[in-house]
Amino acid sequence: MARAWHLKSRPEGLPTSDNFELREVELPPPGEGSIRVRNLWLSVDPYMRGRMRDVKSYVPPFQVGDPMDGGAIGEVVESNADDFVPGDLVQHMAGWRDEAVVSARTANKLPDLGVPPERFLGVLGVTGITAYFGLLDAARAKEGDILFVSAAAGAVGSTVVQIAKAKGMTVIASAGGPEKCDFVRALGADQVIDYKAAPILKSLAAAAPDGIDVYFDNVGGDHLDAALAVARNNARFAICGMIESYNKAEPTALRFIMRIIAARIALKGFIVFDYFPRMAEFYAEMGPWVASGTVKSRETIVDGLEKAPDAFLGLFEGANTGKMLVRL
Amino acid sequence: MARAWHLKSRPEGLPTSDNFELREVELPPPGEGSIRVRNLWLSVDPYMRGRMRDVKSYVPPFQVGDPMDGGAIGEVVESNADDFVPGDLVQHMAGWRDEAVVSARTANKLPDLGVPPERFLGVLGVTGITAYFGLLDAARAKEGDILFVSAAAGAVGSTVVQIAKAKGMTVIASAGGPEKCDFVRALGADQVIDYKAAPILKSLAAAAPDGIDVYFDNVGGDHLDAALAVARNNARFAICGMIESYNKAEPTALRFIMRIIAARIALKGFIVFDYFPRMAEFYAEMGPWVASGTVKSRETIVDGLEKAPDAFLGLFEGANTGKMLVRL
Repeated sequence: MARAWHLKSRPEGLPTSDNFELREVELPPPGEGSIRVRNLWLSVDPYMRGRMRDVKSYVPPFQVGDPMDGGAIGEVVESNADDFVPGDLVQHMAGWRDEAVVSARTANKLPDLGVPPERFLGVLGVTGITAYFGLLDAARAKEGDILFVSAAAGAVGSTVVQIAKAKGMTVIASAGGPEKCDFVRALGADQVIDYKAAPILKSLAAAAPDGIDVYFDNVGGDHLDAALAVARNNARFAICGMIESYNKAEPTALRFIMRIIAARIALKGFIVFDYFPRMAEFYAEMGPWVASGTVKSRETIVDGLEKAPDAFLGLFEGANTGKMLVRL
Repeated sequence: MARAWHLKSRPEGLPTSDNFELREVELPPPGEGSIRVRNLWLSVDPYMRGRMRDVKSYVPPFQVGDPMDGGAIGEVVESNADDFVPGDLVQHMAGWRDEAVVSARTANKLPDLGVPPERFLGVLGVTGITAYFGLLDAARAKEGDILFVSAAAGAVGSTVVQIAKAKGMTVIASAGGPEKCDFVRALGADQVIDYKAAPILKSLAAAAPDGIDVYFDNVGGDHLDAALAVARNNARFAICGMIESYNKAEPTALRFIMRIIAARIALKGFIVFDYFPRMAEFYAEMGPWVASGTVKSRETIVDGLEKAPDAFLGLFEGANTGKMLVRL
């Protein structure tokens, strides 16, 4: 029997362990085109909180009574699909469980990039794809640009900092508190702003006396407004996240939005899924960076399927540094 | 003696007639390479409000005590420059006055497109260039797109409506009051919203049940927020003006800015001057449209140099339908 975490009830406010239930499930034999996978690594991510709500978004909600899912790395143990054999390591979306039968079309064999498999849930997974294409495609950042990136101690932000340095940009990064700022500085950022120490506009204007060419936005609100204030002509903004606004009812107040016109600023929102067809391009450049340590990743590992909800809940208590993973 | 409007003081909030002073000025004889021009038509434009502030922008600010300037059409009355003879009609930037001596390099002889000269301050001038390149280049609008354009009874907006229809788009347009809405409807807009009759978000959602592909923003504020709310995936916004914010001290409050991410919206600010090198392209397509009546221009004409400030102030009270001009 396999075991899978099910959504027992929808949380109000912060989720608790009562919202989850671990149940045994009987797996069917893999039909034509399917594979049976034993999971090795599970991903737990903040966006899953949104899926616990019953609202339409770009990812469908979890259903009460149904198994949950999410990114996972597993080993094929039985195959009824061409091109897959037992022993293959695959990335797929049937996480939150120890074994699963999935359509081979929804599983990707891990390319041989000489890195540990769990990297494909982090810097070589959704986190890395978000950072890489957000910076280089949505914002069209290039060598010599002055980049500002917010939430730079987070999973995406810290990857953006390292890619930008590898590409020859000047990096101004913001994070909250001295410890996170030290971490970002160690990643190679040229200037680090502690946004908790002073108003972000004042700090950014001081850190970027010549303005910025690119802003990678993970925060929105005052950070976005400050970036608008100091943007140079033809600046490009990649809008990746607005965590400052997620739990606020008030509208976002922008004092400098009119600078979009005078400075000919381009703002571009993007969703990581849109870049999945360009994975080959991503692996070709990021693979060697990760293998060589040019782009480092930090992980917090929790052991055992039983602990998956604890790992997830820990995300909201700051229990992780870098990517939170569950090892089976 | 010539007469020229001078900036007497900088406005706080809405400008008033007290900010302007009409003074006599003695013109020098035109030196080598210069021409003396008697103005026939003066342009007054919302962007001039920005020039009354003492802040760095893409156009230098007017200086207190100095004559103001802006687009004008005049007739050469004395020439000390090659290729210019008395009687030539020219477009130049020494507006806000009845006569001026200008360098011939800053004056353009009107091309022979078979249209009245004042058109070169409107649909064939900065207004038309703004509408044409803002729509087709900054917003990359194309046949089949659903377009929303605000301030559609204004000079730029009314031109956008007509270009969009000539290009095969569905046009949803907003204007203030029944009279302006009738005007916009007569230009060919498929749906016209009276933004004074109901909240713009509610009206736009009803007028665009399938959302919008393109927003041409002349207003900012609530109009921009409503456009964000109803934007389809990969929508493109050309940010041309934000007249709602020009005289306001409060920041712009946006309730739907997070939709930039989920809908992958691209916002692009632009300045008409950047497109001046592409005038040939513009004349080639717009010239025949204007001459044939495919793109009509409506003007609000105020007579007499003395009335130039009134004409300008009227822009902020919605006194104009179409391009506001001063006829001397």
